[in-house]
Amino acid sequence: MPKDTVFAAELPWPAYQARVEGGDVPILIPLGSMEQHGHHMPMHVDVLLPTEFARRAAAEAGGLVAPPFTYGYKSHQKSGGGNFFPGTTSLDGATLVNALKDVVKEFVRHGTRKLCIVNGHFENSWFITEAIDLALRELRWDGITDVKVMVLSYWDFVDKASIKRLYPDGFLGWDIEHGGVLETSLMLRLHPDLVSLQDAVDHPPATFPPYDVYPARPEWTPASGTLSSAKDATPEKGDILLDVCTRGIVAALRTEFELPT
Amino acid sequence: MPKDTVFAAELPWPAYQARVEGGDVPILIPLGSMEQHGHHMPMHVDVLLPTEFARRAAAEAGGLVAPPFTYGYKSHQKSGGGNFFPGTTSLDGATLVNALKDVVKEFVRHGTRKLCIVNGHFENSWFITEAIDLALRELRWDGITDVKVMVLSYWDFVDKASIKRLYPDGFLGWDIEHGGVLETSLMLRLHPDLVSLQDAVDHPPATFPPYDVYPARPEWTPASGTLSSAKDATPEKGDILLDVCTRGIVAALRTEFELPT
Amino acid sequence: MPKDTVFAAELPWPAYQARVEGGDVPILIPLGSMEQHGHHMPMHVDVLLPTEFARRAAAEAGGLVAPPFTYGYKSHQKSGGGNFFPGTTSLDGATLVNALKDVVKEFVRHGTRKLCIVNGHFENSWFITEAIDLALRELRWDGITDVKVMVLSYWDFVDKASIKRLYPDGFLGWDIEHGGVLETSLMLRLHPDLVSLQDAVDHPPATFPPYDVYPARPEWTPASGTLSSAKDATPEKGDILLDVCTRGIVAALRTEFELPT
Amino acid sequence: MPKDTVFAAELPWPAYQARVEGGDVPILIPLGSMEQHGHHMPMHVDVLLPTEFARRAAAEAGGLVAPPFTYGYKSHQKSGGGNFFPGTTSLDGATLVNALKDVVKEFVRHGTRKLCIVNGHFENSWFITEAIDLALRELRWDGITDVKVMVLSYWDFVDKASIKRLYPDGFLGWDIEHGGVLETSLMLRLHPDLVSLQDAVDHPPATFPPYDVYPARPEWTPASGTLSSAKDATPEKGDILLDVCTRGIVAALRTEFELPT
Amino acid sequence: MPKDTVFAAELPWPAYQARVEGGDVPILIPLGSMEQHGHHMPMHVDVLLPTEFARRAAAEAGGLVAPPFTYGYKSHQKSGGGNFFPGTTSLDGATLVNALKDVVKEFVRHGTRKLCIVNGHFENSWFITEAIDLALRELRWDGITDVKVMVLSYWDFVDKASIKRLYPDGFLGWDIEHGGVLETSLMLRLHPDLVSLQDAVDHPPATFPPYDVYPARPEWTPASGTLSSAKDATPEKGDILLDVCTRGIVAALRTEFELPT
Amino acid sequence: MPKDTVFAAELPWPAYQARVEGGDVPILIPLGSMEQHGHHMPMHVDVLLPTEFARRAAAEAGGLVAPPFTYGYKSHQKSGGGNFFPGTTSLDGATLVNALKDVVKEFVRHGTRKLCIVNGHFENSWFITEAIDLALRELRWDGITDVKVMVLSYWDFVDKASIKRLYPDGFLGWDIEHGGVLETSLMLRLHPDLVSLQDAVDHPPATFPPYDVYPARPEWTPASGTLSSAKDATPEKGDILLDVCTRGIVAALRTEFELPT
Repeated sequence: MPKDTVFAAELPWPAYQARVEGGDVPILIPLGSMEQHGHHMPMHVDVLLPTEFARRAAAEAGGLVAPPFTYGYKSHQKSGGGNFFPGTTSLDGATLVNALKDVVKEFVRHGTRKLCIVNGHFENSWFITEAIDLALRELRWDGITDVKVMVLSYWDFVDKASIKRLYPDGFLGWDIEHGGVLETSLMLRLHPDLVSLQDAVDHPPATFPPYDVYPARPEWTPASGTLSSAKDATPEKGDILLDVCTRGIVAALRTEFELPT
Repeated sequence: MPKDTVFAAELPWPAYQARVEGGDVPILIPLGSMEQHGHHMPMHVDVLLPTEFARRAAAEAGGLVAPPFTYGYKSHQKSGGGNFFPGTTSLDGATLVNALKDVVKEFVRHGTRKLCIVNGHFENSWFITEAIDLALRELRWDGITDVKVMVLSYWDFVDKASIKRLYPDGFLGWDIEHGGVLETSLMLRLHPDLVSLQDAVDHPPATFPPYDVYPARPEWTPASGTLSSAKDATPEKGDILLDVCTRGIVAALRTEFELPT
Repeated sequence: MPKDTVFAAELPWPAYQARVEGGDVPILIPLGSMEQHGHHMPMHVDVLLPTEFARRAAAEAGGLVAPPFTYGYKSHQKSGGGNFFPGTTSLDGATLVNALKDVVKEFVRHGTRKLCIVNGHFENSWFITEAIDLALRELRWDGITDVKVMVLSYWDFVDKASIKRLYPDGFLGWDIEHGGVLETSLMLRLHPDLVSLQDAVDHPPATFPPYDVYPARPEWTPASGTLSSAKDATPEKGDILLDVCTRGIVAALRTEFELPT
Repeated sequence: MPKDTVFAAELPWPAYQARVEGGDVPILIPLGSMEQHGHHMPMHVDVLLPTEFARRAAAEAGGLVAPPFTYGYKSHQKSGGGNFFPGTTSLDGATLVNALKDVVKEFVRHGTRKLCIVNGHFENSWFITEAIDLALRELRWDGITDVKVMVLSYWDFVDKASIKRLYPDGFLGWDIEHGGVLETSLMLRLHPDLVSLQDAVDHPPATFPPYDVYPARPEWTPASGTLSSAKDATPEKGDILLDVCTRGIVAALRTEFELPT
Repeated sequence: MPKDTVFAAELPWPAYQARVEGGDVPILIPLGSMEQHGHHMPMHVDVLLPTEFARRAAAEAGGLVAPPFTYGYKSHQKSGGGNFFPGTTSLDGATLVNALKDVVKEFVRHGTRKLCIVNGHFENSWFITEAIDLALRELRWDGITDVKVMVLSYWDFVDKASIKRLYPDGFLGWDIEHGGVLETSLMLRLHPDLVSLQDAVDHPPATFPPYDVYPARPEWTPASGTLSSAKDATPEKGDILLDVCTRGIVAALRTEFELPT
Repeated sequence: MPKDTVFAAELPWPAYQARVEGGDVPILIPLGSMEQHGHHMPMHVDVLLPTEFARRAAAEAGGLVAPPFTYGYKSHQKSGGGNFFPGTTSLDGATLVNALKDVVKEFVRHGTRKLCIVNGHFENSWFITEAIDLALRELRWDGITDVKVMVLSYWDFVDKASIKRLYPDGFLGWDIEHGGVLETSLMLRLHPDLVSLQDAVDHPPATFPPYDVYPARPEWTPASGTLSSAKDATPEKGDILLDVCTRGIVAALRTEFELPT
């Protein structure tokens, strides 16, 4: 029995209860997707990465990690290639909103008062916002007003200094990091067996007009499905990312949830 | 790169596409829950077990396993102890229906025409039924009428002969097997590190009146959360279960989906 | 004016109010369906039977019977033949959930605190569960936490002794009692004019594989629409059923709702 | 077995199928409510009356009557006294819309192409409109475009000549006929045992300002719950109404559905 | 900066806050539609008119006017010609209900306790009723029970004396006033540049059977889209209408909201 | 009658029909919100600005402008100050999604095949995406697959050269342009009477941590409600913006919709 696990679902309920009652222990909920990530990476990158960040942050800050959301919102052409790719498997917006709302309310029922959504799929962002708003509204109707929810995407913790080290030739924005250096470096460090860097397609960064068109235009997305090239990805860059993001998340948890250090 | 994985999300999209286009390769979707399973087992038993059955069946029958649903419908007192336990983390019915509907439609968009829902949480059953009905309706509106969906709960494949071997003192029904011999034996074989048999609470099988009452009555459920005792669970019984259920599922897949043997 | 009626809707509102205010008088809500029941029975069997059980139980235990739900959830192949039959007329799951939720909340607004759902259609079961859960949640938001809801299907009160008398050649489970001895015997006793036993099709009990397939397979259901033969149905068996189930329901009402005897 | 019944649910499915296949036989769906109707009448007046009109019209025009909707939309203060009365038991708008939508689609699945909603509760009107619009939309998505739905409220067939006979002292509009001469006269003819005319409260017709206020103002509704006095109700007036409305409905069915006379 | 505007959205938030905090200042919400109004009028008549009535009433009674709803419920054949016309652009019932519910709750969050829905499109009526009911329910769940909502359609304030002046040859009911004398006279006074009276099609008043048929019958509606002739419309009649309706609305606001005069 | 108006709702339906049938004329739908914009600007900035851009673009490119959405999604703390301000009046995500979905489908029913959503409120973005996806799905169910929808936010057309002219001291991102130089300059040019620049609160640009917290933290937002200072706003900068954005939008419309120049 892994008594020191940070994964909530690996605990029997009495051990879990002992942790969450009182409400001081934060629960981190990884939100991912099943989405194509190019020729060189599997389709659950957006699940594996936030789960790992949540695990590291929970271990350091003294939290628990909830089971990850394995499906997420539809892939957007400018940040995930578009939802027309085979393999990309997405939920309607309302479905994601309701699923997260339900789960948040359940953790609060258990006693939790500090929740942190650890997002690994950009397109989930606004549906997370809505889910939290609706969950807090319904909790308020239950007379519960002391819940605090953080929402973060791990890449937002990469600071300028790290960006310079990661992208010495210039950084073009997180949007087109889909299947690029960021995710590939992390996967090379964490799950090298799931990466096949030699299959990565090298191509110039995707560019898009300042508007969207629907139905999406497959020809706007590089045929590989990635939006920038992964060729400069390295496990060492993965270490940089793991380090800076984990530190940032841990600091944020401690600050916002007033956790002991 | 695990080219021979059966887990769909471990594949890059081109490899996935090569498998599913044409529609002959079945996709198995494990459906679980986060639910208390007594003092001796973790709370993701209902995710781990159907995922493993799906993995074995897919490997043998030539299918792919989709990412599991990590949350499911509310625990019912007579089959899961009730939804009032800390740790049990459930979705509203409509949420589960919509999530499964969305995912089924996505796999069909990829080309899949043969889907199998591998359920590990009894309470999911009727919401699966509804999800499939709605998915097939919407697919029909898209002009797609050649989809076939199997729905199964792995324990329904345990035959009478096996039941005699598993329950020499008599079998009291799958309902009260929550956290009992069935699940514990499978976990002992598959994830012994997650089981702490010495913490299992020995108690007589739960009995309930022939009706339900809401709000649920905590005093009707054994305090441990299990509905029957796990004390007779053994890894060997896990083998029996793995064997009979996997064989049954594989045979069903081959029959219904006309798969090569 | 039928001042002693147990049917709530037969009362003028002041008489109704006099009964329900204070909350001691239970309201029984029959839930049925419009569903084919073979060649020998009409399609509102699942409405007539729970309404009659509710009427008898209310008369004995001192309750009121609400107007029945005349439509229910989709017929399942293994318990009702499948929803593909002409005549079977069903609601989506969410529709049934919301309708029952709305009605329960209204009766509570009137003052009722003890409700009993008397189900006559197996497939309604889990949507009843969900409706009650949502109704209690919303009532809680209104500050009302003293409502108690019983849910029962009348056949669950048939005890082993009665089963032996009803099925001397062996009992195969309630699932396949669709249009069989149970329902036909009750209808022969209560509504003989609506039964045409000579039109009943005699066939062996339906058997199904341990999984479901969608779209349903019409060839799995006996062509008659019944799942077991009604040929052994008699009005006398109807009496046995009326007696044992009514007694059981009355006892349950008295126990759970602390009613005077 | 009532082979000549017009009630669809009293038929076994093969007899029902024989009637509806081909689509020429119209199905009439009565829509009512459970709503207070003063001190002198029961609360299912709005179910009994449209069901009887549907029965008569179906018998004459060659149609079938579906099971009635026993619950309807919320009582409006100006036409039903308001939804604050004990006994009045109503559905949310969306619930009614979805229930009727589901049922209409099912009858069309059986082969029906001619449907007539026979409304007995004014407040249902616009939710019927919406339900039909959504049902026709979804049927269109199924490629079915030859469905025709009539919607009627029986009182709209009372012609000017009849109004003069019914209301010799002047007619004040259908709105305030709630529990008044119209409904009471019909009930006196059809269900005298359910009427207690001596308990009717005589009061001047209700008057309201040209706007609504929410929450409703109980003091605007006569304390009895009726909106006009029933004292002039007679069974003979019931005959007038039965005659003129039935003739009108039958004529409408024949015209719109091109039925043989 | 128009410090004395009655349009809430023209104020900066501090000025708005100063007005609404305390809850004494009523907010008037105009509800319209985009709907064809014949050959001689634009399609936002149902937005312009209630907005103007709201503006006048707010100016006199001391209220604020919220941004209008620019889209409304589907045009009904008997009151708006039917929803099949090009240009008529409508919302589903549930969409309108939710939009109005959301907005009402927001104004209450700001401090408002007195709201008045000023309707300009007949078909919106029942969905307004439902929206208010749901909004008050959810506000109640938030512990807010002192909100009062008026709902009015401006034409309901036209008294009998004015009707005689407006329709010297007899009045046929507000239903068929779609694009007729009422609306055209108001538009001639308020927005003469948007009216082209010479393009109005003169035709006898539309007549309909006492039932509805769906899909709607285009041939039942005059080809122009109007339901009665606008030829007798004049700006002077517009003045009569502006005067009588504004006075009525102002009086109603003062009475119901206990406003100073 | 403004025969040359670009506002669709100012046209009578026959003139509208003449424009949209055939599907070549694009319809531009402005989407705004009612949201506080600091002490110096009114709360419908996000409606006025996209409506004006739509008007200009439609006039040049030969399109029509639909009535604007006057309410939008909830204000986000990092881009709009947060939804806790009095005055900010927002829709739930699902409400906005359904409203836009309904309207898009209606315009397509009229014949339109080219739609452009002109967004003026950042927080609407992802709900627009979802609305379009659902609208196209339902249109596909209706057999309509030739619809093309552009989605744009006007500020995304500001090029680097213009940014340099607008923000000579450096540009900090569109997010914090809430109530700042961008919107104020446009309002100063277009609606100077609605701006009171002397009331603008000068403050350093808002800064936020790399995550969100709910409930929002009022203290994170400058007390004025703006996220950057408007003090450098000028009508001349408004001209720059009007010019570059209109040109960009017109070019985009021409390219994507293959419009004549």
